[in-house]
Amino acid sequence: MNRKETLLERINGPCDIKSLSFVELETLAAEIRHLIYTTVSKNGGHLSSNFGVVELSIALHRVFNSPEDKIIWDVGHQCYAHKILTGRRDAFAGLRRKDGLSGFPNRNESLHDPLGTGHASTSISSALGFLVGERFSGGKGLAIAVIGDGALTGGMAYEALSHAGQLGLPLIVILNDNRMSISPNVGGISKYLSHLSMKAKYQNFRRAFDASIKKIPVIGVPLFNGITRLKRAVKAVFYHDNFFVDLGFEYVGPIDGHNIERLEAVLRDVQKLNLPVVVHVLTKKGKGYEPAEQDPSLFHALSPSSKLTEQTTSANTKDGGHHDDLSFSQMFSEAMLELGGKEPRLVAVTAAMEHGTGLSAFRAAYPGRFFDAGIAEEHAVTFGAALAARGMRPVVAIYSTFLQRAVDQIIHDVSLQRLPVLFAVDRAGFVAGDGETHQGLFDISLLRAIPNMTVLAPAFGEELRMMLEWALTQNNPCAIRYPKAPAPFQAAPFQDGVLDALAPIPPLETGRGAFVDFGPDGSAGKNVLVAFTGSLYPSIRRAAQLLREQNIKAGFYNLRFLKPVDEDYLAGLLNSYKTAVFVEEGVKNGGFGEYAADLALRKNCPAKIITLNAGDRYFAQGSREELLAGCGLDGEGIAASILNG
Amino acid sequence: MNRKETLLERINGPCDIKSLSFVELETLAAEIRHLIYTTVSKNGGHLSSNFGVVELSIALHRVFNSPEDKIIWDVGHQCYAHKILTGRRDAFAGLRRKDGLSGFPNRNESLHDPLGTGHASTSISSALGFLVGERFSGGKGLAIAVIGDGALTGGMAYEALSHAGQLGLPLIVILNDNRMSISPNVGGISKYLSHLSMKAKYQNFRRAFDASIKKIPVIGVPLFNGITRLKRAVKAVFYHDNFFVDLGFEYVGPIDGHNIERLEAVLRDVQKLNLPVVVHVLTKKGKGYEPAEQDPSLFHALSPSSKLTEQTTSANTKDGGHHDDLSFSQMFSEAMLELGGKEPRLVAVTAAMEHGTGLSAFRAAYPGRFFDAGIAEEHAVTFGAALAARGMRPVVAIYSTFLQRAVDQIIHDVSLQRLPVLFAVDRAGFVAGDGETHQGLFDISLLRAIPNMTVLAPAFGEELRMMLEWALTQNNPCAIRYPKAPAPFQAAPFQDGVLDALAPIPPLETGRGAFVDFGPDGSAGKNVLVAFTGSLYPSIRRAAQLLREQNIKAGFYNLRFLKPVDEDYLAGLLNSYKTAVFVEEGVKNGGFGEYAADLALRKNCPAKIITLNAGDRYFAQGSREELLAGCGLDGEGIAASILNG
Repeated sequence: MNRKETLLERINGPCDIKSLSFVELETLAAEIRHLIYTTVSKNGGHLSSNFGVVELSIALHRVFNSPEDKIIWDVGHQCYAHKILTGRRDAFAGLRRKDGLSGFPNRNESLHDPLGTGHASTSISSALGFLVGERFSGGKGLAIAVIGDGALTGGMAYEALSHAGQLGLPLIVILNDNRMSISPNVGGISKYLSHLSMKAKYQNFRRAFDASIKKIPVIGVPLFNGITRLKRAVKAVFYHDNFFVDLGFEYVGPIDGHNIERLEAVLRDVQKLNLPVVVHVLTKKGKGYEPAEQDPSLFHALSPSSKLTEQTTSANTKDGGHHDDLSFSQMFSEAMLELGGKEPRLVAVTAAMEHGTGLSAFRAAYPGRFFDAGIAEEHAVTFGAALAARGMRPVVAIYSTFLQRAVDQIIHDVSLQRLPVLFAVDRAGFVAGDGETHQGLFDISLLRAIPNMTVLAPAFGEELRMMLEWALTQNNPCAIRYPKAPAPFQAAPFQDGVLDALAPIPPLETGRGAFVDFGPDGSAGKNVLVAFTGSLYPSIRRAAQLLREQNIKAGFYNLRFLKPVDEDYLAGLLNSYKTAVFVEEGVKNGGFGEYAADLALRKNCPAKIITLNAGDRYFAQGSREELLAGCGLDGEGIAASILNG
Repeated sequence: MNRKETLLERINGPCDIKSLSFVELETLAAEIRHLIYTTVSKNGGHLSSNFGVVELSIALHRVFNSPEDKIIWDVGHQCYAHKILTGRRDAFAGLRRKDGLSGFPNRNESLHDPLGTGHASTSISSALGFLVGERFSGGKGLAIAVIGDGALTGGMAYEALSHAGQLGLPLIVILNDNRMSISPNVGGISKYLSHLSMKAKYQNFRRAFDASIKKIPVIGVPLFNGITRLKRAVKAVFYHDNFFVDLGFEYVGPIDGHNIERLEAVLRDVQKLNLPVVVHVLTKKGKGYEPAEQDPSLFHALSPSSKLTEQTTSANTKDGGHHDDLSFSQMFSEAMLELGGKEPRLVAVTAAMEHGTGLSAFRAAYPGRFFDAGIAEEHAVTFGAALAARGMRPVVAIYSTFLQRAVDQIIHDVSLQRLPVLFAVDRAGFVAGDGETHQGLFDISLLRAIPNMTVLAPAFGEELRMMLEWALTQNNPCAIRYPKAPAPFQAAPFQDGVLDALAPIPPLETGRGAFVDFGPDGSAGKNVLVAFTGSLYPSIRRAAQLLREQNIKAGFYNLRFLKPVDEDYLAGLLNSYKTAVFVEEGVKNGGFGEYAADLALRKNCPAKIITLNAGDRYFAQGSREELLAGCGLDGEGIAASILNG
């Protein structure tokens, strides 16, 4: 083979790019984009945001010395070029795959990832911590936080800016302004950034104005001098005209984020500044790939094997395929659209996840009843609480992993006030591809601990709809948790090997579940009770089949209500079985299993209790099937636990 | 009696103040201060902040029509004048007492309290929610958030401002700027507010400048005209010079918050504005009470029966009394001071609770190793995570109730990264006086759910110190939870009725507890095992005495480690008893009791398991003793549960 070596093949670490010419760097940028493109089209992942920061990543690694200087990528899904440049070019083929590279910065993967990220708005806090620690240790290293305009809507970023401005250490904040967070950016901060860009234009205008005014006959020069004096006076007052400056930062920008030479020049100045500074960089999402530049939202995140060359549809928009391919998010989307017509008080609130949560259709139909709070889960929840207190019926749709941000608001502003806020907890349970930071494994434990909460878990799409309708009639806070997975129909109980006949879904009864399979003799077993959280229904179907093959008489019980529980009813059920297995898609501690054990003891149930769950640990990326199998929550694992029980 | 009726006695609701003259209002303000003063000196509570907003409360209720207009007091401890003016004058004598008025706004208490508050930075979110709901319902009511400069450091406030500015509804934000949050205010936002005040002075300067410039001979008038044009051009660009304006708000101020007439005039203008507006009000904490004006921090919060006329010491500073009167916070304070000398990497981080957490001494001794992040728990935790990642030994001291704000940061930035951040969780368990919003009952459940966490609970002051030392040698995140209560010495086990002999404290063993009392025959019972979380030691002493009187052979086991647990060891213990009682100061769901039940089942322990805890509910204010008794966690309650068990 006589193939010419690419530039990228020579880059084994940040040092290798420092000697390249700007012309070579442009070639390198193109090669990086190509590698990202081919990998993401196979493995899934984030495209637009990564294409937007290729030049910025190169410039940062040219000017700064990672890992002595810490570069923290906020949220982190834009770290692909950074990974490729820091010794992970070859490993990049395994991006987001089981045992491969994480799609986010990860401390265990490289010294160049000083702290894992995944949730928004943490980078300034952590860069500041690194810098303070570095100074204590007598080091000279710098700390650079790269944060997008979307993540800047998160209150934590502002808390950190305020603290950093006060400390006065030379923290470098790169504001990566692409005017499009996950959903098109919202809120005052976005307007503010536009204003800053406008100001750059004013600077040019001002220079032209100054030059021309002196040419005015007679009064030109004295007017200019008077004006200069006045400007100085005005400036003394208005100097703090920039929010970042007000908080104690120097401000540079906005500058073109795709011009490596210009970026590098500015960063070299900043490097010597020895003051906290915000560098405002303008980038274009999807830069260098026309379809993504045209519609970056569509290319925000791709599922594995998306055919980029064909018509691509966003992972979360309805695909128009078979009805039984609908995801829970899509079922939620349809149900909200329908319920919006029936219940005029219904309002939807999301925290920058309009598309992901499936609320776009609701927004289109009822624009005045849709609220995107920005990446601001805390505010979104309390805003929802007050809407409920004023008589509305708010549905606050937030992914399980991001709901962790608002635990105090759920306690303090919703549950303590006993307000009927309905939480649509999407991405509950294992989430494919994104890894540790995006698994939804804590919501059961966190929500169970909160008084007045009702926690529901549907097994089927229709059950999700039923639960939504029911919850909207309640006068308490409710949470409905469902996975990022296709929403199955309820199949008829196994009968003569017929798997897929549709069964009617029994109505909801507060605190009670419903059998989805009564076992081989239709008697719901009486040997083994398998009680499960809804998201595990596909695993349960498989386990039921395997147990049937072993002639185990088991009944399969969809818990539906994780809180409250009709304890006498559940204890009654337990008393009819020799063994009761509680299977949940969530961490062990504080989960339903511990509750069930406590219940069994309190009610003196003689049944042997087995609890299956995700344990007390974190899970790196993998497919949903791989992740479930990894902790014994696939059909095989559940059946084996029961057979060995 | 011929006593003259006071003005205040005629005020039964906001309507009654609308007809008073400004002279009468001054008298009313003095009467309100007198009532607050006499009540707080008996019942405890917040003095400085309430004295600071008497005129503001009067002006708000003169101009707006509560409850149609919603007035939300951020944090809420400054609501006393509001309560007195809204029909709760007579009930005010029961402030902060069991079954009396809450020290915070409370939905169940009055229609004038639209949403309960207690934690900082929620008011703008909730006022916005009310306003949106009101508009949907066709109402004309307004919503007013009153937020201090301290609460403005909380990121949630910024999230809400950004969202509100975008929506453009006529939300009214009163920025109550007293330049002193709970600790002296920190961070960029404080500097920013000073700057805004300076700008008011500039406005005066500008008017004088304009007047004088015209008087300049010959070029005066053309210069003035030129300048005016330029100013217009400059203004078009610099108009957005104010952060609030940038976010979409009108800005008015700063104005004197103790001048009712001026406040009222401004608020009447604002009422008609029909735009989102920030009204910047300057107030003085402790206004009208000289000692509190001089040292507002000392009078921030008072314990019941503080003798205000004598030398008052802050509730949380060392009182120099008997050593056994030291609180856990004071023991923490002393231990940190000592450990700071031994461990140069030790740094302390707090979120605006320097005094309350007992870190003032550490700050004084090691000013460069103390960080007050402001009211910003989220940032504080992630900042601590990065400090740990850079090799420091951060102790993050946050009250249990406020730690709820940072659950995601503990998961995502500390535990997932497996960083040795040490959380000093003060005010864990029941907290006297403050009520529902300040009880520390969730930390066990929330922290247990998090992988890699160690959760410790000391029973004695010395044990707290021992745990701190031990935790600083660990390479995992640790949390130490302790109550707002005196830190007892470990008394010797009961022997011949001798209660108070000191016992040595056995060294810590990972995952294991230690007996504090081996029962009447020194054999640690073998009938009943009473295992408890440290904060309950005084209740346990009392229960031990009562059980002894009934001749119950019981051993009393201080759990120490709530996570991890040496399960074989604990199961071994359980196997020596007929009954095991797990007593914890925290909510039932996800608590240690559920865990113990699950463990007993998994390990086939035949002992009968009884779990005692704070249930699944909220608790209004009371003394610590009243609160513990209210859920059966006092000595009598625990003994009764065991005797009836």
